[in-house]
Amino acid sequence: MSAGRRAGLPKVLVIGCGFGGIEAVRALSKAEVDITLVDRTNHHLFQPLLYQVATAGLSAPAVSAPIRHVLRREMRRGNLTVLKAEVSGIDAAARQVTLDGHEALAYDHLILAAGATHSYFGHDDWAVHAPGLKTLADAFDIRARVIGAFERAERCTDPAQRAPWQTFVVIGGGPTGVEMAGTMSEIAQHTLPQEFRRIDSTHSRIVLLEGSERVLGSFVPAQSEQARVQLQKLGVEVRTGCKVTAIDAAGVSYETPDGQTQRLPSRTVIWAAGVAGSPLGRALAHSTGAALDRAGRVIVEPDLSVADHPEIAVIGDLAAAKSHGAGEPKPVPGVSPAAKQMGRAAAANLLRRLRGEPTRAFRYVDYGNLATVGRKAAVVDLSVPGLGALRFSGLLAWLFWLFAHIYFLIGFRNRLMVMIDWAWSYTTYERNARVVAEPRLQDRKT
Amino acid sequence: MSAGRRAGLPKVLVIGCGFGGIEAVRALSKAEVDITLVDRTNHHLFQPLLYQVATAGLSAPAVSAPIRHVLRREMRRGNLTVLKAEVSGIDAAARQVTLDGHEALAYDHLILAAGATHSYFGHDDWAVHAPGLKTLADAFDIRARVIGAFERAERCTDPAQRAPWQTFVVIGGGPTGVEMAGTMSEIAQHTLPQEFRRIDSTHSRIVLLEGSERVLGSFVPAQSEQARVQLQKLGVEVRTGCKVTAIDAAGVSYETPDGQTQRLPSRTVIWAAGVAGSPLGRALAHSTGAALDRAGRVIVEPDLSVADHPEIAVIGDLAAAKSHGAGEPKPVPGVSPAAKQMGRAAAANLLRRLRGEPTRAFRYVDYGNLATVGRKAAVVDLSVPGLGALRFSGLLAWLFWLFAHIYFLIGFRNRLMVMIDWAWSYTTYERNARVVAEPRLQDRKT
Repeated sequence: MSAGRRAGLPKVLVIGCGFGGIEAVRALSKAEVDITLVDRTNHHLFQPLLYQVATAGLSAPAVSAPIRHVLRREMRRGNLTVLKAEVSGIDAAARQVTLDGHEALAYDHLILAAGATHSYFGHDDWAVHAPGLKTLADAFDIRARVIGAFERAERCTDPAQRAPWQTFVVIGGGPTGVEMAGTMSEIAQHTLPQEFRRIDSTHSRIVLLEGSERVLGSFVPAQSEQARVQLQKLGVEVRTGCKVTAIDAAGVSYETPDGQTQRLPSRTVIWAAGVAGSPLGRALAHSTGAALDRAGRVIVEPDLSVADHPEIAVIGDLAAAKSHGAGEPKPVPGVSPAAKQMGRAAAANLLRRLRGEPTRAFRYVDYGNLATVGRKAAVVDLSVPGLGALRFSGLLAWLFWLFAHIYFLIGFRNRLMVMIDWAWSYTTYERNARVVAEPRLQDRKT
Repeated sequence: MSAGRRAGLPKVLVIGCGFGGIEAVRALSKAEVDITLVDRTNHHLFQPLLYQVATAGLSAPAVSAPIRHVLRREMRRGNLTVLKAEVSGIDAAARQVTLDGHEALAYDHLILAAGATHSYFGHDDWAVHAPGLKTLADAFDIRARVIGAFERAERCTDPAQRAPWQTFVVIGGGPTGVEMAGTMSEIAQHTLPQEFRRIDSTHSRIVLLEGSERVLGSFVPAQSEQARVQLQKLGVEVRTGCKVTAIDAAGVSYETPDGQTQRLPSRTVIWAAGVAGSPLGRALAHSTGAALDRAGRVIVEPDLSVADHPEIAVIGDLAAAKSHGAGEPKPVPGVSPAAKQMGRAAAANLLRRLRGEPTRAFRYVDYGNLATVGRKAAVVDLSVPGLGALRFSGLLAWLFWLFAHIYFLIGFRNRLMVMIDWAWSYTTYERNARVVAEPRLQDRKT
């Protein structure tokens, strides 16, 4: 008890409490293993709704829950230890990791589920001007910038200075970029009018820049087109085929499809373009010789283990995994259902190894793909077993998206609160989380 | 419109959007004046419930609302401008203030409602070890420390190192200190058990240190004693007559009533002992020659104006005001009903001056005093007109306190959400806001 471990049981270490890590722990907690779950935060985050925190629609506690609370049933079984710590190194030969730079933690089996971070494609200096959206702190930062921009615009007496504060650029037309752009337009058009005196918030510009030819590239072209139309109806300027060449404090430069360079003065830029595997992927590669793909994700074996290290599995957004179904192996997308399935598969393979059985190749069961654009606007692409693809968009798709997300939110209370929050904000257009905590007195310069 | 001001109307500047500032704006918004409200945050804060944010019971949006939303009806009248800005200087002779160090803003009438901050009685080095509770950022800081302390205790393998992480010291036995201590004890005793594996959260110590002879000194002695008993029932160690002599990262030193020096090793110390007027009080005194009291509050005239500056009023926690009823003038306490009454009184006197009428002395109508201790525990001291004092404690007092606070929460939606949050947490002992945002990747050291 005092060491927090059961003597004699195989020591399983799970790093990361996203969808993959939580599922792995759940699947392992009934087995005769001693589990340690390490994360640098104290909460599980329902990342698909994080954009609602960034756009002031939901509070942080509505989309996140303490890990210890999420896993309270598993904790009671007595073989799970949760530690809030930063994994600062991996030594695969010694089978141990380093916590917070100084404390060693040994394992027999390791499941690495450390997730992804933003990638600025070699332009790390863009990060300060164009924050991405992965953590609660990211969401608070974006919320402060978006709300602060309207406040700064209201302060301006010179219209030329004001325009860049009322211009919002979202870079990247994937699901996050599309939902951020759609929601910001809703705020400017419906939430804020009449609350300002010098500015007209409906004159704000929301520009969505996408490098490829269409938004929502993981959907079929017809649905990308539907998403574009829905975005434009919400007031978003959609510019595809535009490659960003520079971002600074005053705006964004990009190349249009015909090779011209355009400049877009803007004080608020959101980065939703690129993701890269967590730095722990590099640490693992360094320690095991595992190969990484271009995005820094660990290339795993068919059973999700690392080459020559059957005791290590990588799952979720940090894994460059393939689905081994009928036909050619196909890359697994970086979505939460895939992370959950990998978590369960890695746990099952670990238990097979403990029983001396051969492991199985991972197979991703794809139930479909959904993305929301804004109020009453979404696209849905379902795989219905025996029926094939079922695709729809608009209000019906949005309702489907809404209930699917509420259903999957962890914890009854969060679901109820989110439903009430949304019902309220749907009928009133209010966004009740529009509060920004200023730096504390002792942390401020003056 | 573009300048945001109505030409020819008297320019009223209100600094601060607490209870006093909001009431002053409301009272002035129907008059023929041009109002500018300046605050350095974007939100009105319902400070009486801020301790619930610090103790992870409520989310920040549940106890705060955007100023623009709170004042949306007043905004529509067209004579109110809200600016998010820091007032960095006051020039009473020129009748203007400086915003953010560079922008001048002129006024004809000034209502200063900048509130209070923490006072460490000359020991400003204590602030880093013992945060106070005035702003949302303060509440997030305290929440992170309290939740982080249990996480750090779980990391410890040495019981000697662990004890200070499970010892929580609250300094100051006023309403904030009492409710913080009571609620932290509830967390340790009821919320966290079974969620840890190495530590037993019920073995945590919550110590309340108070320099005077009793807690809740603004109540009658019998009620202080009831509060002490209720605190002790909740598991809080109450030590009165103890004067803090040192605070550092490892704990607190204090002098007992019999003159002995005691040392209390603790990693989490909360400061609820002293308040001081906002630094803008000093700026005003410097510019007008107004006198400050020992706590840095501006000593005002009977009509709340500043000596020799009838165009300036100071209200709320920043004012050292007296109530001019029957008998001797009595000091006005630093509570939200007093701030609201001063806001209305200052607005009324301003309008009297515009009409050429004499101003009136401020009279504080005291409806009573309430303080909560914890679940089912509170003390209430009501002044019932014609009946005299009505004092009660325990469950009935707690219910009275609960409904009074929910009633006064600004905005219907917040009231409903807070009620649901509380109903949930009352039945389950869960505290759903137990999430701590870690620093963003780009802001971290490693």
